[in-house]
Amino acid sequence: MTTQQRRTRRRGARGASGAEKPAGSPASPYIERKLPFYSPLAEEDLVKLEAQVDWLLENIGIEYRDDPEALEIWKRAGVDVQGTRVKADAQLIRALCAKAPRKFTQLARNPARSVEIGGTSQVFAPVYGAPFVRDLEGGRRYGDLESFEKLVKLTYMLPSLHHGGFVTTEPCDIPVSKRHLDMLFIHMTASDKPHLGAITEMSRAEDSLDMAEIVFGREVMDENCVIMGNVNTNSPLLVDKVASEAIRAYCGRGQGVIVVPFILSGAMGPVSTAASIAQALAEAMSCCAFAQLVRPGAPFVLGNFLSSMSLKSGAPTFGMPEPVLSNYVVGQMARRLGLPLRCGGSLTASKTADAQAAYESADSMHSTMMAGANFVLHSAGWLEGGLATGFEKLVMDADRLGSYQKLLNGLDVSDNAMARDAYAEVEPGGHFLGCGNTMANYKTAFYESALSDSENVEQWEEHGSKDMERRAYERWNAMLDSYQAPPMEQSKRDELKAYVDRRKSDLPDAWY
Amino acid sequence: MTTQQRRTRRRGARGASGAEKPAGSPASPYIERKLPFYSPLAEEDLVKLEAQVDWLLENIGIEYRDDPEALEIWKRAGVDVQGTRVKADAQLIRALCAKAPRKFTQLARNPARSVEIGGTSQVFAPVYGAPFVRDLEGGRRYGDLESFEKLVKLTYMLPSLHHGGFVTTEPCDIPVSKRHLDMLFIHMTASDKPHLGAITEMSRAEDSLDMAEIVFGREVMDENCVIMGNVNTNSPLLVDKVASEAIRAYCGRGQGVIVVPFILSGAMGPVSTAASIAQALAEAMSCCAFAQLVRPGAPFVLGNFLSSMSLKSGAPTFGMPEPVLSNYVVGQMARRLGLPLRCGGSLTASKTADAQAAYESADSMHSTMMAGANFVLHSAGWLEGGLATGFEKLVMDADRLGSYQKLLNGLDVSDNAMARDAYAEVEPGGHFLGCGNTMANYKTAFYESALSDSENVEQWEEHGSKDMERRAYERWNAMLDSYQAPPMEQSKRDELKAYVDRRKSDLPDAWY
Repeated sequence: MTTQQRRTRRRGARGASGAEKPAGSPASPYIERKLPFYSPLAEEDLVKLEAQVDWLLENIGIEYRDDPEALEIWKRAGVDVQGTRVKADAQLIRALCAKAPRKFTQLARNPARSVEIGGTSQVFAPVYGAPFVRDLEGGRRYGDLESFEKLVKLTYMLPSLHHGGFVTTEPCDIPVSKRHLDMLFIHMTASDKPHLGAITEMSRAEDSLDMAEIVFGREVMDENCVIMGNVNTNSPLLVDKVASEAIRAYCGRGQGVIVVPFILSGAMGPVSTAASIAQALAEAMSCCAFAQLVRPGAPFVLGNFLSSMSLKSGAPTFGMPEPVLSNYVVGQMARRLGLPLRCGGSLTASKTADAQAAYESADSMHSTMMAGANFVLHSAGWLEGGLATGFEKLVMDADRLGSYQKLLNGLDVSDNAMARDAYAEVEPGGHFLGCGNTMANYKTAFYESALSDSENVEQWEEHGSKDMERRAYERWNAMLDSYQAPPMEQSKRDELKAYVDRRKSDLPDAWY
Repeated sequence: MTTQQRRTRRRGARGASGAEKPAGSPASPYIERKLPFYSPLAEEDLVKLEAQVDWLLENIGIEYRDDPEALEIWKRAGVDVQGTRVKADAQLIRALCAKAPRKFTQLARNPARSVEIGGTSQVFAPVYGAPFVRDLEGGRRYGDLESFEKLVKLTYMLPSLHHGGFVTTEPCDIPVSKRHLDMLFIHMTASDKPHLGAITEMSRAEDSLDMAEIVFGREVMDENCVIMGNVNTNSPLLVDKVASEAIRAYCGRGQGVIVVPFILSGAMGPVSTAASIAQALAEAMSCCAFAQLVRPGAPFVLGNFLSSMSLKSGAPTFGMPEPVLSNYVVGQMARRLGLPLRCGGSLTASKTADAQAAYESADSMHSTMMAGANFVLHSAGWLEGGLATGFEKLVMDADRLGSYQKLLNGLDVSDNAMARDAYAEVEPGGHFLGCGNTMANYKTAFYESALSDSENVEQWEEHGSKDMERRAYERWNAMLDSYQAPPMEQSKRDELKAYVDRRKSDLPDAWY
């Protein structure tokens, strides 16, 4: 552990001590990982992958399209720009990436929920961007503002989700030109966890930043990251205006960005996992360098989203060994770069919260967690390749995230954990159920799942033979029944409301 | 990689080249792991755990009950035996453990299916010992010989299961005194994969060894491991007659044993994970030392089976963070000891093949696989804390095992995988779907799951909205319809049949 890590860990601990604990366990504002990292690549393979990244940056280059200002920024840095193609010296890109913080804090409006992003910390956020929702009784339907608000409330109440994300489902009943305002208002009032802002257009990003300024005040915002934008590149090797403008908007005001190449290997990248990983690194590193040109020291999260393909149909597949391996590999590469990493999630191609959804999500998320991903979008609620947000899936995944939080604490080898005193009480062939060491420690010994059933089959049948999906349905409904909004100054709430009303009356209804 | 590992790897590759490929993919007789191991413990913590193991061996000791011959063997080795308590010098135990092979081969009657156990190889076997079976249409019922035979046939046909295990369900319709004979006959004739033998009584172990001798011949059996017994200790710190007799029977004839402390933390071991791990190591190492006293060089697999507990009911729980962490830890400890390891599996407390079953099994098995477990019993089919074998669960788990096999191949960073030629064909913003590199490589680029559905929601609904459990039901039934027995010399089959008939007429019907 570096001195920097130790210091941040202490800061983290201070933050946690002031936290209100939401219902359920474990509750901490984010994970401070104690388990060591896993490094799957030998040095020579790592060097070869990094050489491929550099080759792409220097020989193929990255396109920055439809944003002349972005090209000007590159040119001012002395970079070779041919038309819209940016071919930069890899050493320059790496030097610029080194200006980004290895770790930074995103403030929440409740300071006890502020999150550290980078180093040994890990932050889980729910699914993002699904146009549909699904629940056990309501079936599959378009997302709307009512569903969106429920999902924000559930995310607020689930202790293993540290961050609100943003578009937990698309509120398709609200015009595209205005829905970001409603989403921001709900995140800012119905939850006090940190969240992201809009990126689909420069003015929507600016609305996000303006509303964050209402919540946090100009001074706090000048000195801290209080909101971030999450954007995709347009793989292969293309950064379109949406991405470069979002970087300019967020980083321009000292806020953070997460830039994520979404690569379906064989389509938006070569069919090999190694080549797709290298390409994703090149794209994200170029954007990180660009962000540092916009504002040196801008908080930046290196994103990675790799999916595999069904040979039968060409459809994307999730939870498969190629993206699972890529999580482990990208973790190691990001650590070497010294950049906070977003990758993985609880991903699946399944349409419902069945066994397929769970197997794929668990393998995807286990590797994401073990790889040390610092910010995990889609860590709960994702169904159907990201097209639908599942209400049951959200609480099921979150239940498993709690178990990962326990796992990342590592093994306690203290003298108390060695329990030598227990062997004075318990003879060979006996049992430890009532011995002193057990009585003193059993309450914190095990992760207590809210949704896993360990009853015997007779009890389980007596209680209705409910499978996990049914139990999850009951749980999220009961949670919403007991929801209470976190406190907020009425004046701030009014100011946010007035902003939303004013912007909504200024903007036309548009569905694009 | 050591020279030994390289040599074995080559041998493995030769073995594989001659294999008949069963239906499905990937097909290899066992996994040769290329991904490096993960070591979660710092040296000082490892040393502390090992000191706890030694403290238990020397200060508390292990009971060997109801088997005077076992105590004689310990005494002849000069060990301090007080009554039935064996307190051995830890250095002696460690020196004896060092006589066990780091890696050995278990021959299958089809040589192409022989497995290497130890080092970087990994072998997956199905669930063992469940008295009940469950399938989607037939529900839950006692296991019987018909179910048993179906499960052996399915295991034979599933390419990701490398080993037959033994009691895939208890054939409860056959007297306990005779059922081992039927089970052995079915394993030896309906499959040609390696398998285990009976251990519940000395004479049943001897029957297993005698029947293996019919299959392999005395000479082959004298020089090779062709069958193994899998036994539990009676934790805490007790080795009963079943275990010590099985070790004497199997190792006495040069065959292998797997000795597995089954510890529910807080009941058969202290409530802490660290203490339970240390106790399990002490028990298994004592048995390994005992096996080496019976026959120096006897193949031995160090077993570990740790489960956590529900605070609500005291019931065992599976797939939870404590046993998941223990898999990673035990992997590291077994490598340091230089002994082949059995741990983990696709474990769950769920009653059906629902999302709970899949989440728990995946987290349990992902850690088992990454931990480098060399022999994995219960890697497919386990339900309800081991009380039931699920037919759907068997094929679902096996499908995931195939993905682990791909994952353990590690990352291909060859020049072909770097795909630089593809970037000459594909412009930024273009796609790789039809480019030369994709066309040359797509067929082997991705693991093709048999049971994961990646159709879009409309196609999926059109095809009947089948969840994974329903698809698995259809798959195992279709598999059984196409089952063909592997070839076997008629004279050997007759000899086995005659042995079974003779022993069955000699033995009384007994239900214990």
